[in-house]
Amino acid sequence: LTQRARGRLFGVGVGPGDPEFVTLKALRVLAAADVVAYPAPETGPSFARSIVGRWLSRGQREIAIRFPMRPGPPPAAVYDDAARAIAAELDRDARVAVLCQGDPLLYGSFCGLLARLGSRYPVEIVPGVSSLGACAAAAAVPLVTRDESLAVIPATLADEKLASRIAAADTAAIVKLGRHLARVKRVLGRLGRLDDAICIKYASLPQQQVRPLAAVDAAPYFSMVLVRGGARTE
Amino acid sequence: LTQRARGRLFGVGVGPGDPEFVTLKALRVLAAADVVAYPAPETGPSFARSIVGRWLSRGQREIAIRFPMRPGPPPAAVYDDAARAIAAELDRDARVAVLCQGDPLLYGSFCGLLARLGSRYPVEIVPGVSSLGACAAAAAVPLVTRDESLAVIPATLADEKLASRIAAADTAAIVKLGRHLARVKRVLGRLGRLDDAICIKYASLPQQQVRPLAAVDAAPYFSMVLVRGGARTE
Repeated sequence: LTQRARGRLFGVGVGPGDPEFVTLKALRVLAAADVVAYPAPETGPSFARSIVGRWLSRGQREIAIRFPMRPGPPPAAVYDDAARAIAAELDRDARVAVLCQGDPLLYGSFCGLLARLGSRYPVEIVPGVSSLGACAAAAAVPLVTRDESLAVIPATLADEKLASRIAAADTAAIVKLGRHLARVKRVLGRLGRLDDAICIKYASLPQQQVRPLAAVDAAPYFSMVLVRGGARTE
Repeated sequence: LTQRARGRLFGVGVGPGDPEFVTLKALRVLAAADVVAYPAPETGPSFARSIVGRWLSRGQREIAIRFPMRPGPPPAAVYDDAARAIAAELDRDARVAVLCQGDPLLYGSFCGLLARLGSRYPVEIVPGVSSLGACAAAAAVPLVTRDESLAVIPATLADEKLASRIAAADTAAIVKLGRHLARVKRVLGRLGRLDDAICIKYASLPQQQVRPLAAVDAAPYFSMVLVRGGARTE
């Protein structure tokens, strides 16, 4: 860490969507932040910001990190530009809070900022309720108990890798569904696991849905499929 | 659900230890609870209760679910007895909040109660900040980014199963360490992954420690090892 930098970067998990899933620490860090940054679509409002909007104050500067809405990983330039704007604030000794839907370190776009700024500035991560916990809660099913293992797997993997990773755990949580839904259903069908699979959409939001995956034909990117194996009784 | 039962069972995640990691929803549910139940050792105070003790009121009845402190799964009788005591409260239309360290559905003892009571009473799960998120935050390292997959694996598994599950993911989070620490180090050494491993103890507590696993010789049961693979830059 450079000694001259007195600014501090916070990665703040704000949970999956329900404002009540925000932690006391997230609220304290947000209240003390000089600058609030957040991911946002190319045009329009940020979902992460909407979760905590009621607690932001007018005196705080804001940085919207605008991601293109096409499939695939976002261009490095988005992170490079955001890191530059945030570094400029940190160099002015600002406390910068980056809002992260769910948990900052579980597929969070914050990871791209951490890679660019983590060695140059003091960083503090405030963990949040993750989509994993929220989806399991919505379905009221255990993720794992006792000696079970859990695999968290992106639906973007190729069929064979997807199948082998599902098979290598007692419970599989498949994320980043979107346009991969039909393919995930086919892979689970071939594994004989389709009937063990539940699909959770909009976890923790008013429009939350929990349904057997076999009955689901479309799901947004932020949906999750939980595939439970083994006996769950203790 | 039986129509006569007006009671409601809540599984309330209270996070890994820092009281600031409690969510607004957990606080609201606790404030409205008639009965608060929590896991506890055979003698002495409950850690889960200590996290939220400042927010409990004297008028609330309490049920301590006392687990024997020996290794291995707890006897079914502990869950049977607790489920009976809680059912008696639910039959009197009580709102019963069961405190869960971390998240209720990620290796939570709440799963044993859910299996016994979930089909008989209305249940609501309040997810909490998990040990996964708290340990990654403590170490300030991503759990997973982009197309990576994560495996959460109990150290209690036999060597070969442990090794194959670590190898089947980009990042492995090994939980339930305790007396399995030396064995986990040997397995990781044989996989050539020992130097990728970080050990996190007492995540989110004042005595929190983050160290290379190779330098750690003892760790309590609730410690975690994070083994990161692949490139993490975005």
